[in-house]
Amino acid sequence: MSRRTLKLGAVLLGVGGPGQHRTWLDPEIPADASVDIDWYLARAEEAEAAKFDLVFIVDSQFITENSPNHYLSRLEPLTLLSALAVHTRHIGLVGTATTSYNEPFNLARRLYSLDHISGGRAGWNVVTSGDAGTAGNYSRDEHYDYATRYGRALEHVRVAQGLWDSYEADAFPRDRATEVFLDPAKQHALNHKGEHFSVVGPLNLERSPQGQPVIFQAGDSEEGRDLGASIAEVIFTHAQTLEQAKAFRTELRERAAAKGRDPEHVLILPGIRLVIADTDEEARAKEDALLGGRSFDRALKELGRPFGWHDFTQYELDAPFPDVASLGERSFRTQAEGITKLAKDNGFTLRQLVEHLSESARSPFVGSPTTVADTIQHWFEEGGFDGINVTVNAPSEFARFTDQVLPILRERGVVRSEYESTTLRGNLGLPIPENRHTAARRPQPEPALVP
Amino acid sequence: MSRRTLKLGAVLLGVGGPGQHRTWLDPEIPADASVDIDWYLARAEEAEAAKFDLVFIVDSQFITENSPNHYLSRLEPLTLLSALAVHTRHIGLVGTATTSYNEPFNLARRLYSLDHISGGRAGWNVVTSGDAGTAGNYSRDEHYDYATRYGRALEHVRVAQGLWDSYEADAFPRDRATEVFLDPAKQHALNHKGEHFSVVGPLNLERSPQGQPVIFQAGDSEEGRDLGASIAEVIFTHAQTLEQAKAFRTELRERAAAKGRDPEHVLILPGIRLVIADTDEEARAKEDALLGGRSFDRALKELGRPFGWHDFTQYELDAPFPDVASLGERSFRTQAEGITKLAKDNGFTLRQLVEHLSESARSPFVGSPTTVADTIQHWFEEGGFDGINVTVNAPSEFARFTDQVLPILRERGVVRSEYESTTLRGNLGLPIPENRHTAARRPQPEPALVP
Ligand SMILES: Cc1cc2nc3c(=O)[nH]c(=O)nc-3n(C[C@H](O)[C@H](O)[C@H](O)COP(=O)(O)O)c2cc1C
Ligand SMILES: Cc1cc2nc3c(=O)[nH]c(=O)nc-3n(C[C@H](O)[C@H](O)[C@H](O)COP(=O)(O)O)c2cc1C
Repeated sequence: MSRRTLKLGAVLLGVGGPGQHRTWLDPEIPADASVDIDWYLARAEEAEAAKFDLVFIVDSQFITENSPNHYLSRLEPLTLLSALAVHTRHIGLVGTATTSYNEPFNLARRLYSLDHISGGRAGWNVVTSGDAGTAGNYSRDEHYDYATRYGRALEHVRVAQGLWDSYEADAFPRDRATEVFLDPAKQHALNHKGEHFSVVGPLNLERSPQGQPVIFQAGDSEEGRDLGASIAEVIFTHAQTLEQAKAFRTELRERAAAKGRDPEHVLILPGIRLVIADTDEEARAKEDALLGGRSFDRALKELGRPFGWHDFTQYELDAPFPDVASLGERSFRTQAEGITKLAKDNGFTLRQLVEHLSESARSPFVGSPTTVADTIQHWFEEGGFDGINVTVNAPSEFARFTDQVLPILRERGVVRSEYESTTLRGNLGLPIPENRHTAARRPQPEPALVP
Repeated sequence: MSRRTLKLGAVLLGVGGPGQHRTWLDPEIPADASVDIDWYLARAEEAEAAKFDLVFIVDSQFITENSPNHYLSRLEPLTLLSALAVHTRHIGLVGTATTSYNEPFNLARRLYSLDHISGGRAGWNVVTSGDAGTAGNYSRDEHYDYATRYGRALEHVRVAQGLWDSYEADAFPRDRATEVFLDPAKQHALNHKGEHFSVVGPLNLERSPQGQPVIFQAGDSEEGRDLGASIAEVIFTHAQTLEQAKAFRTELRERAAAKGRDPEHVLILPGIRLVIADTDEEARAKEDALLGGRSFDRALKELGRPFGWHDFTQYELDAPFPDVASLGERSFRTQAEGITKLAKDNGFTLRQLVEHLSESARSPFVGSPTTVADTIQHWFEEGGFDGINVTVNAPSEFARFTDQVLPILRERGVVRSEYESTTLRGNLGLPIPENRHTAARRPQPEPALVP
């Protein structure tokens, strides 16, 4: 198989990165963009015009007044994507939804409805919720620990996939002449009884054009990588250096292969932040200005998030970084441990840590259109990723990428010129999973006769 | 206040009534209409052109191969409505969602997202799930009993309404000059701890143009009526005779008043089935043909639904109707008891009961356009209802209503000529609920001084 083109995702209203709490000050973005359906519709249409594979919607369900501004008030991802579905024709629609605070029947049904409405363009970014406080919105005293979160996630996805196979492709003859609507032999209950869920089924939705929504996954811990290797067809991650990116991709492909999966069916798409200007120098100055806009106080508050929104303002700024890594266990453990190790290894004070983190948030994708195109192509060809998720905030910045960088990459054959398919699977080059009941019905090949 | 105009709802792909399992045979309806987003979009646009108040989507989450055909495979209501939202501008979007198998935070969030996407046109039809088998899709051994179902429903709605008040109207100054995004004093946690749910909040969505989605409710038991009187702003019901309809409306208004509510803010909208032809005679013949299309075997199977899909084919057809009313307790109790009483009072055999039920399904709204307009106006003026929910299947039948009946009613001032508002509340003439925290902040009137 010839290598695929570079895959492109657009993270609509991407938050994260330095100065995220200042995004709303950009006069180009409506200050209430996070609840403005017209803003999302326009960006999705632009991404589709640029032949992106997908739009990507992140999510969280727990806020404090210190949460990033655009988190405070925003649309639920699948509800949002359904509106985008009827204004686009080719682009994939990937929504983040947590397995920790959803029931598989309900979520499988909503995702499959989106898959039908969009003609086979739905994707599900499977997460387990990092914000410990989410528990309080779902009648629980505390968030699940890692083993439970990821155990539940795996079972949840398997149940959803089982429900999506409730009907074989030809279950509905809908033949008016013979008055046969359903072929009951092709309707299947699931009868799942597991550690976390019992689900009888069947799901009340027939097979969609791409068979099953594409499974995306984001989660960085040992448990998270194991889940990704088990179920993910696309992995959303981050990439700070080419070496890190290559190591992550190699590891995940190997883990998937060890589970008997084809590594070509596991695509790695890090989220990347682009800073593009006419020259490299101007682009660097642009990033400096962005980093300069940070507020130390704000960064100190946001540092609390991976530790379950721990309040770091209670500590002496010039004393050694406090060891509260254990608070990550019911929150973002990987991040909490990483930050703590960084501080320890370097002997950082709290102040030095905050300053270091902001500084090290510099993006590797800063420069003129040619520089950025070169860097992306280099990382891609070196096996750093299969595609990229580009943060979309200000339209003029996005246009720099679509109008100045993409034409270079298109010219070089790195990205597509036309959609290959109307389904997300088709465009990502992922196979359509065969319905399990149809597969079971298929005659097995005769065992080869010993001559 | 001058009396409101008659309110109009369009139940898209309305099932129920005689011959429901034969609807798909109509060559005018795509055989897969229930998953065809274009079918729904076209009907919603027609309903909006006819100045309907709302489209209404019913729901169920448990199927057997005997379920009505269009139930076997269909889109999840809120996902569907979000797609309709961006192709319409005035019509309300009312989705059925069960309080028995949803968490309030998740559902409140989805409904409020729809409310934002539609600019204030969302409505929630609160149900508790009649199909006992739904439990099996949600890791439960059996469905909740009535007390639990309705207790949970009341608390669920109250929690949702509390979450919708998380932000006061002016919580987001988003003032770029002063760099103030949020006024934290106007963000409110809920801190609800109740019998069924604990929800901390706040919900991550600001106030919508209509403040809160409109609460619809459907449920007929004593418990169901009590819930309706407590929380419903619109009640979805059925109406077989004018006397029944008046009695139901009077009772619900009185019950609401007894709870301290204004009965003018409780609208009764029965679902009605229209059979319209050029003359009364032709319309009656049309209904006869419809009733003649029934299959006794099918009706016998469908009779099982209110009794938790009990299998009535196991009984002798000419023996007295078996007393299995108790099976309704975890299913549709009101219907199960009503059917059992009917059989007992009349000494029906099983066969006679099935035949009687099909026969008594005749609609009171059968005739020429003038006859149907007269009947609707008469029931409306006599206080039988505040509006009607019209079943929409074949477009040409719907067009008979919009193009032949509605002009008569419009001419007589019974229905509107133009939308009064862009929100569902505005069109229904329902008040916008004040945010509870804003209300608490408002200075109380000085106590009158005794002279
Ligand atoms: C790149 C990336 C993106 C993520 N996006 C989300 C998100 O949008 N919503 C969410 O609840 N969690 C998100 N997560 C968090 C994971 O679901 C997970 O709960 C959290 O990272 C802690 O688990 P971990 O230590 O395995 O990473 C993301 C994680 C990564 C690495
Ligand atoms: C007119 C009407 C429409 C209803 N529509 C739905 C529906 O779409 N989905 C659903 O789950 N239940 C629906 N219900 C059922 C109620 O939610 C309730 O569970 C069921 O009727 C049993 O309760 P009851 O005895 O109080 O009516 C409807 C009930 C009525 C009376």
